[in-house]
Amino acid sequence: MKAEYINPFIKSLVNTFDTMVGCQFTQEEIKLKEGSDPKYEISGVIGLSGNAEGTVVLNISREVALKAASTMLMTELTEIDEDVIDAIGELTNMIAGSAKGELEGYSLSVSLPSVITGRDHHVNFSSKVPPISVSFSSDWGPLVLEVGLTSVAEVAEV
Amino acid sequence: MKAEYINPFIKSLVNTFDTMVGCQFTQEEIKLKEGSDPKYEISGVIGLSGNAEGTVVLNISREVALKAASTMLMTELTEIDEDVIDAIGELTNMIAGSAKGELEGYSLSVSLPSVITGRDHHVNFSSKVPPISVSFSSDWGPLVLEVGLTSVAEVAEV
Repeated sequence: MKAEYINPFIKSLVNTFDTMVGCQFTQEEIKLKEGSDPKYEISGVIGLSGNAEGTVVLNISREVALKAASTMLMTELTEIDEDVIDAIGELTNMIAGSAKGELEGYSLSVSLPSVITGRDHHVNFSSKVPPISVSFSSDWGPLVLEVGLTSVAEVAEV
Repeated sequence: MKAEYINPFIKSLVNTFDTMVGCQFTQEEIKLKEGSDPKYEISGVIGLSGNAEGTVVLNISREVALKAASTMLMTELTEIDEDVIDAIGELTNMIAGSAKGELEGYSLSVSLPSVITGRDHHVNFSSKVPPISVSFSSDWGPLVLEVGLTSVAEVAEV
């Protein structure tokens, strides 16, 4: 994966959380994702296709998910229900959609988000696109963004 | 979701398993997916975008996944490792890709597959596309196909 791919997603995540829920996330470590160790309980997953293809995962703790969804829906949510799941899907969609705009040359389109729940789930990327993992911190808690994206020519070469 | 969407995926699943691993799956129940009860331990997830958008999930037991991957790779696999994950991703990709060909009018493109593992994981679809769930049986065991797909116009109307 080209490093230039990741920056639009980092910027988009920070802007989306700031604009949508007023929470400032600070980028911490960037690394190649190793293994499939689970981090947090909820993952928003969205596919990208076009002249590049791949997957974006927003991996978020129960606590951060509840705070974000409660702020978006202006009501206090205490359980991971359909509303929280839709809110996390929507945030994932916004992050991917806004980054897409900055990667114009790849004519990307995004699919609808799925949201994976379960304390012990692992989201495994295609081995064709080793994902980059970026951790973030905030007053609400941490989260992890994972992006695996490759140009269609690169996929065809594998 | 229009019922006409589901048939190409059912046909494609049956053909893909027959051609790729020589296993005949028989369609059992078709229903709207209710709740997010987990069925099996492994889910291949792939996004579709274009003039319709949505998600396809191949939910498969550990046993069926190991048999399918062992057949594809012509070696006996006994653990859910990277090879098995890639094989399930590839089967999911083939099922979506072949169904896409039968839904030409929607100019669909597929993203790369992700594969979710974990005994207690749930794949939650966007509330915009209530998924249809189709169960299948075979000599190897059962599996479930879930498809949530809607035309872009329908999404915009929600």
